[in-house]
Amino acid sequence: MNRIITISREFGSGGREFGKRLADSLGIAYYDQEIINGIAQKSGLALEYVKSIVEKKPIIHYPITIGRRLSSGFPTPFNPSMEIYAEQHNIIKELASKSDCVIIGQCSDYILREYNPFTIFVYADMESRLRRCRERAPENEHLSLTKMKAQILSVDKDRARNYKFFTHEIWGKKENYTLCINTSNIAIKNIVLPMSELIKAAQVRVPNDK
Amino acid sequence: MNRIITISREFGSGGREFGKRLADSLGIAYYDQEIINGIAQKSGLALEYVKSIVEKKPIIHYPITIGRRLSSGFPTPFNPSMEIYAEQHNIIKELASKSDCVIIGQCSDYILREYNPFTIFVYADMESRLRRCRERAPENEHLSLTKMKAQILSVDKDRARNYKFFTHEIWGKKENYTLCINTSNIAIKNIVLPMSELIKAAQVRVPNDK
Repeated sequence: MNRIITISREFGSGGREFGKRLADSLGIAYYDQEIINGIAQKSGLALEYVKSIVEKKPIIHYPITIGRRLSSGFPTPFNPSMEIYAEQHNIIKELASKSDCVIIGQCSDYILREYNPFTIFVYADMESRLRRCRERAPENEHLSLTKMKAQILSVDKDRARNYKFFTHEIWGKKENYTLCINTSNIAIKNIVLPMSELIKAAQVRVPNDK
Repeated sequence: MNRIITISREFGSGGREFGKRLADSLGIAYYDQEIINGIAQKSGLALEYVKSIVEKKPIIHYPITIGRRLSSGFPTPFNPSMEIYAEQHNIIKELASKSDCVIIGQCSDYILREYNPFTIFVYADMESRLRRCRERAPENEHLSLTKMKAQILSVDKDRARNYKFFTHEIWGKKENYTLCINTSNIAIKNIVLPMSELIKAAQVRVPNDK
């Protein structure tokens, strides 16, 4: 079975950087935005639309009907979110079957749970998340700290809601992950090499080990 | 400042073994039962009594008074738990000041928070905790799985209650730790070496690191 590592992360915790560096260190594939591009291509839906559903808000449309239909009693909802999730599901499973890889977000920890992935949750305190966001902001972006904090909280709220909607599980609950790391006072590039060794070591099973 | 590692752990998660091996791997001191012995010696209280308070239940005794005293209005509680906690506090700080060390439990993550410790929470699913408990049980102990599970839950409940009582914080809440590791399907001895490298790497600060 391929070595699969999934990274879930709070916004501003450096989780994406961590995942990218981890994939480089292990010499394995890295998937992030590629999955959303793949869903758009395969479903024929616009990239921005797919992105808004995967990253922001699941949408359910109820078709407009007049009166009641005799056959079913209630109108069947048209559910673009679930169609997109099904596509996401297929693409993520396809990638995991192809080779060892690191996958960022997108419920991949849940979707690949039968693949025995090493699932990581990256988090940090608000102060260090604000610092990371400020350091990485484009030059022409000048958000106040209050607005930046609101943005961080809003992105995380979307992630938690989406995760709940698609998996019925709680995003960030430590029991759902193999390892959770608090990057508040940690230089990410420093811990990548030992973390990749730790992942390799954790995936070697020793029967009846004490 | 000394390198301080604190290990909090669910019962049966292998956290104590992990801490011991980590101390050996890093070549640093390891403190566990020694702290309780120290409290008993310094306070003159019986070892079993100290143990029952530190590991099981904080106790507050209200002195028996008849009627109301004019001076204070209410009787002052005699609080052996807080006296023991104060002693525990002093001993843990003394040990942390002396040399690099690994400390198991005993609110040490909270007591030493100004020492910039690397705080670890070790947890696992019930199945693997039952397996670990069964493997380590003395030969003459034959608890049923149901009783073993009840014991595991009871010890953890005591730990959570004690932690809350002394620190006003939530035991096991990931935000309170640097790293949380799920040992459910992991052979502990395999991950000790990379984990000790990870701790060393995490404690090297890189200013303005991206």
